[in-house]
Amino acid sequence: MSDPVTADAPAPSEPGEHRPFGVSTAPAELAVLEPDEAGRAVLAELAAALPADRMLTDPDTVRPYVHDDAEWAEFGTPLLVVRARSTAEVAAVVTACARHRVPVVARGAGSGLSGGANAVDGCVLLSLEKMTEILEISRGERLAVVQPGVVNDHLRAACAEHGLWYPPDPASAPWSTIGGNVATNAGGLCCVKYGVTRDYVLALEVVTASGEVLRVGRRTAKGVAGYDLAGLLVGSEGTLGIITEVTVKLRPARPTPPRTVVGFFDSLAACGAAVAAVTEAGLQPAAFELVDRVCLQAVNAWKNAGLPEDAAALLLAQTDLPEPAAQIEADAILDAFRAHGATDAMASTDPVEAEALFDARRMAYPALEQGGDAILTEDVCLPRQRLAEMLAHVVEISARYDTKIANIAHAGDGNLHPLIIVPHGDDDARRRAQAAFDEIVTLAVDLGGTVTGEHGVGLLKRDGMARELGPGVLAMQSAIKQALDPQNILNPGKALA
Amino acid sequence: MSDPVTADAPAPSEPGEHRPFGVSTAPAELAVLEPDEAGRAVLAELAAALPADRMLTDPDTVRPYVHDDAEWAEFGTPLLVVRARSTAEVAAVVTACARHRVPVVARGAGSGLSGGANAVDGCVLLSLEKMTEILEISRGERLAVVQPGVVNDHLRAACAEHGLWYPPDPASAPWSTIGGNVATNAGGLCCVKYGVTRDYVLALEVVTASGEVLRVGRRTAKGVAGYDLAGLLVGSEGTLGIITEVTVKLRPARPTPPRTVVGFFDSLAACGAAVAAVTEAGLQPAAFELVDRVCLQAVNAWKNAGLPEDAAALLLAQTDLPEPAAQIEADAILDAFRAHGATDAMASTDPVEAEALFDARRMAYPALEQGGDAILTEDVCLPRQRLAEMLAHVVEISARYDTKIANIAHAGDGNLHPLIIVPHGDDDARRRAQAAFDEIVTLAVDLGGTVTGEHGVGLLKRDGMARELGPGVLAMQSAIKQALDPQNILNPGKALA
Repeated sequence: MSDPVTADAPAPSEPGEHRPFGVSTAPAELAVLEPDEAGRAVLAELAAALPADRMLTDPDTVRPYVHDDAEWAEFGTPLLVVRARSTAEVAAVVTACARHRVPVVARGAGSGLSGGANAVDGCVLLSLEKMTEILEISRGERLAVVQPGVVNDHLRAACAEHGLWYPPDPASAPWSTIGGNVATNAGGLCCVKYGVTRDYVLALEVVTASGEVLRVGRRTAKGVAGYDLAGLLVGSEGTLGIITEVTVKLRPARPTPPRTVVGFFDSLAACGAAVAAVTEAGLQPAAFELVDRVCLQAVNAWKNAGLPEDAAALLLAQTDLPEPAAQIEADAILDAFRAHGATDAMASTDPVEAEALFDARRMAYPALEQGGDAILTEDVCLPRQRLAEMLAHVVEISARYDTKIANIAHAGDGNLHPLIIVPHGDDDARRRAQAAFDEIVTLAVDLGGTVTGEHGVGLLKRDGMARELGPGVLAMQSAIKQALDPQNILNPGKALA
Repeated sequence: MSDPVTADAPAPSEPGEHRPFGVSTAPAELAVLEPDEAGRAVLAELAAALPADRMLTDPDTVRPYVHDDAEWAEFGTPLLVVRARSTAEVAAVVTACARHRVPVVARGAGSGLSGGANAVDGCVLLSLEKMTEILEISRGERLAVVQPGVVNDHLRAACAEHGLWYPPDPASAPWSTIGGNVATNAGGLCCVKYGVTRDYVLALEVVTASGEVLRVGRRTAKGVAGYDLAGLLVGSEGTLGIITEVTVKLRPARPTPPRTVVGFFDSLAACGAAVAAVTEAGLQPAAFELVDRVCLQAVNAWKNAGLPEDAAALLLAQTDLPEPAAQIEADAILDAFRAHGATDAMASTDPVEAEALFDARRMAYPALEQGGDAILTEDVCLPRQRLAEMLAHVVEISARYDTKIANIAHAGDGNLHPLIIVPHGDDDARRRAQAAFDEIVTLAVDLGGTVTGEHGVGLLKRDGMARELGPGVLAMQSAIKQALDPQNILNPGKALA
């Protein structure tokens, strides 16, 4: 391929400068809610307990906080935003809210894609973005202790200085926070080999629904004392407790830059078959991504990247084994690509070139946004052997609903992100897009998959989850919620069906 | 070293032939309990619902089921034993017990070391040992689906035939079952690099406290739809639900036999320092074990193994990187051993010799049992950097209480198993041993560790866990138990403080 993409990745944002890509437009009438009696009581208690600069009530400063990056997810109007700076301040907020039964919605960088951090009416919107301290990085224990507002890429960079590595790398890593990553059990590119956020959480400090500060989990490599509460809180989207400190497991830094293998395919189905073949062959790429033609075109249009637009999709794999095993694995991946019809396939040993190829993957989403359309992001995850079938269905659904759908995927995990592109203001297109979205979710469940691989349930996947899990499992979920948040004040209406 | 051990590992047991090493002695008066009214009702319902061969009431056949391998853990007298052969039979048992508020204690092979599977008075002892089917092994999805009574080593062998690998390998792997492994979140030798049982559980079929059959988790590589109920059930010791089917994640088989590095040390503290140095250096052994002199002597006495008895302890490490990286890592481990005073250190490339060295580790426990004494097995897990300190304390505690303590450890994880050896019938020795046990548990918590790294809370670690977790976390545990088992019929009195 010629002229791989060289554009810079989005820069890590400063605290408060989240939401680097404008998505939703808040309604013009947005303001903080006129407080009722309970709201007034909470406001008074918070004013007494917190320094004044923690509380935001001006509509213009509040507005950026009321929703995350999920297109079309509804959001309400908060009482105020509190930007807490310590666990004690978080506990003060929750204690006041518990006393007056006022909802608390916690949020990090607001980069979520399911509406999980969206305001509910009359809530205290509790931002953890100012709790940005890295408290410890230990080479001897292979762990780090951080506040929830630490940006994912910042932690990774700090670990690297100690010869350590924090693998979970959601595409939002330059601006999303560890607290948000934990609350949604974020995935990313590396997790095909190295696991998701839950696999790295050792311990949490958490403020419970009553305002109590507890520590769950452990600092040791292993431990089975009691139910796995840390694991239960990971992915609970702020509905069971508010995370104020995170202890994560680390790995030794990888000694060599990975080798990258790239293949261009004439059809999405051929991509899916190649992915299945790589798994079947027992290979273990450290990243294994799919980017389709619509994305390639958008990246070309934005960055003049010169990516081939005649291919239906691109598969990108990395191997990080020590040499010469990496070369052997790269060759085996190349063989699998060619055996399944890759029209052009090559391995790259140049880390700059390799990084540029992955930039095409990372830039797909922002590149699509340059068109000015709304993007409805899907997140289904399929059994690996059904990926090709699902991709074929998505192509068919796109045609049938006359709706433009781009596809990126953590292909090795079967985690597919159809990006449904809808011109703003076209109500009919919106209805068709919503129907396509719903059909993709339904199909994922029918094929034995899940409605959300890594983005979380939030608001957008509640119905899909209900269909996936069934009433008995939903009742277990609700029983746990009821046990740990009996007043239902923690992010009410989210994550549960 | 000369003449490494060549004795055979314990053979996998047939279903029903669990407890290969006799440990506790049931009191002579043991029999099934005379049923009260609720008990009679349950017996009648089970007799109507189940084939007669599922129910054991003869005291001699019931006796082997009433406790696990935990020395000194109390156990009660059951109503009967049910050996279920299907999920429907398990559901029938729990439904009847729920209706009449009769406790149900589930068990696998009874190889637990914390009393978690011990009978409580008047319970139905529900053995899953006959549910031994491997339902699916998929190379394309890298998963296996098994019934809970499948023996760990049997699953590993079956996976190997498909070029796949199930890593969790507790020392009990030749006879312990996957259901028991899941219920206790079992560890093992490989988990220093490859993680524990929880890291491999994708989905569970579970019979709830009301007798409902539910499926939690997923078959996909990733998924975040709802709270992580599968993870919560792992390690819950049968107190939240009864596991009737397990879907585990698999890895591709390792292509090459691992290289083994061995070092003999003059002191346990030097061993601990060498372990810390290996971690600090960013090395990642695939197993990293400690065996002390008492164990070496016992193995020599049993198997005439010719292991050097002048060393205080032996460290055993394996590296499974592809060559030549394995050799580089083995050399680095050797360097760390020598830098910390290993008197004799060598690397082995001969898989037979390497396996024989690890046999010395695996045989330590049965070798100690040959002496005919009782063995009280500890299971503390320390922050890796505190292991040397803890080992020095154990030596001191052993001397102070005039109690023989052998030590084996999953050293790389900081997971230490002091084995407290007590002559049967010596009441004073028993009191001293109990005091030593309690002091080790207390010290582990004081050093930032946990009271149980991999054996579970059961009965023996309830007090230690209470001290480790504190009242707030215990209340969360109890709230979850109450939510999912409101009648407290599932293994009551276990796992919770």
